[in-house]
Amino acid sequence: MLPRLPDAEFVYVGDTARLPYGSKSRATIARYAVSSTRFLIDKGAEFLVIACNTASALAIDDIRDAAGPVPVLGVIETGAAEAKANSTTGDVLVIGTDATVQSHAYATACGALGVRAIEKACPLLVPLVEEGWIDHPVTAEVLRIYLSELLASQADQFVAADTLVLGCTHYPLIRAPIERALGELTSSVGNFPQGPIRVIDSAEATATRVAAALNLPAPGASSAKQKPVMSFFATDSAAKFRSLGSRFLGQPIEDVTLVDLGG
Amino acid sequence: MLPRLPDAEFVYVGDTARLPYGSKSRATIARYAVSSTRFLIDKGAEFLVIACNTASALAIDDIRDAAGPVPVLGVIETGAAEAKANSTTGDVLVIGTDATVQSHAYATACGALGVRAIEKACPLLVPLVEEGWIDHPVTAEVLRIYLSELLASQADQFVAADTLVLGCTHYPLIRAPIERALGELTSSVGNFPQGPIRVIDSAEATATRVAAALNLPAPGASSAKQKPVMSFFATDSAAKFRSLGSRFLGQPIEDVTLVDLGG
Repeated sequence: MLPRLPDAEFVYVGDTARLPYGSKSRATIARYAVSSTRFLIDKGAEFLVIACNTASALAIDDIRDAAGPVPVLGVIETGAAEAKANSTTGDVLVIGTDATVQSHAYATACGALGVRAIEKACPLLVPLVEEGWIDHPVTAEVLRIYLSELLASQADQFVAADTLVLGCTHYPLIRAPIERALGELTSSVGNFPQGPIRVIDSAEATATRVAAALNLPAPGASSAKQKPVMSFFATDSAAKFRSLGSRFLGQPIEDVTLVDLGG
Repeated sequence: MLPRLPDAEFVYVGDTARLPYGSKSRATIARYAVSSTRFLIDKGAEFLVIACNTASALAIDDIRDAAGPVPVLGVIETGAAEAKANSTTGDVLVIGTDATVQSHAYATACGALGVRAIEKACPLLVPLVEEGWIDHPVTAEVLRIYLSELLASQADQFVAADTLVLGCTHYPLIRAPIERALGELTSSVGNFPQGPIRVIDSAEATATRVAAALNLPAPGASSAKQKPVMSFFATDSAAKFRSLGSRFLGQPIEDVTLVDLGG
């Protein structure tokens, strides 16, 4: 997002006291997402990006209600649009949390674009990323198990998937092991006439959409500031947010403010 | 607890909307634990058992403050007493969540009894139990990694541990794989003059203490009711609580009431 929107001001709130959302119910996820929405609106947000697949999948309507006139962009709709743009066969695979997959939000959004989506919940991947086991044999084995089940299920349904959508914001951190596992599985079983499966995520597409919506200069334009303005808020331990957040952002996070959203 | 206390009435609250506690900060865990405490006191509790190692480790003082005159028993103190009773060498190993281990609550409680404790955080074990991967090669491999690191660290510190405390309420569900991994590791390295390491948890000892404190009849006494009275409350999806809770309890849970503790 940052390299695409160097002139925007970013306010990020991480609801770290109540994470993970992915294993919880719709009602609870919606209540949490609405409290974060109100916080960001109070901070003066003019555009809201829901950078969490689970909240986008289960609470987008509640978030839009709470945001009033402020536009809201979820990652599911951009993910589905990316899937459509990337898939030749019109069949895609999606991996995500329990809650995202049970909501079938990707299948619905892809279906609206004429794309078939086969979804698979992978609840151990977030804990493995949080443990820091990125290039680790256990993560490789867990991926082989989840992805071989997903590939078997798409074969059962006579789907010719050529695209895999990373349907959770943690997954880009294990993109390389996901691509390796997928490559091994599809080359060994020999029944993938559609060729290799391409891995995509919605981050790039989301940044492009936000830039267009806000009429911000294109990347690389001369008006770009040296350092984007960023503020970070977390509902639990600022130290932990700094550590994991810096890995996600790819650069150090200095100041994190603790906020209480209730609960 | 149930077989030891057939005449007690149980009110259980599971804070499923905000779990897990084990990866969060002391302040957040204390706030959550206090809200559950107030709920149980309002329900008329005459004795409070903190059946969560993380809450016992980080919030026992806050819980006692909130409980007022109602006695509070945490699982750390009974776990430490069990460790003392079981260990011949006076050296024990403890596995638990990140928060429990970082608090060093077990080392402190064991130290007060003259027992040395070496602690190790095992953050992937709760997600593996929740995924239902009990007798699973991935769980076996994760246990080999965590336990071999723990055994290497006790060897570095010239500790002759003969006891391993299960310092998290999820771990008894993978007691068999833990015992297998421990058996393999201690038989192969050959430097365990103290003999095999015994696995213990604090559940039995906790139940015995509660029975004594409440002057309840001993197990098997003729006054025992056929079915103990139990009420279950959860802060998130009752369906999910029923499913996982039944596995913990070892018998079906029928009625679960959804409650809002705020947040």
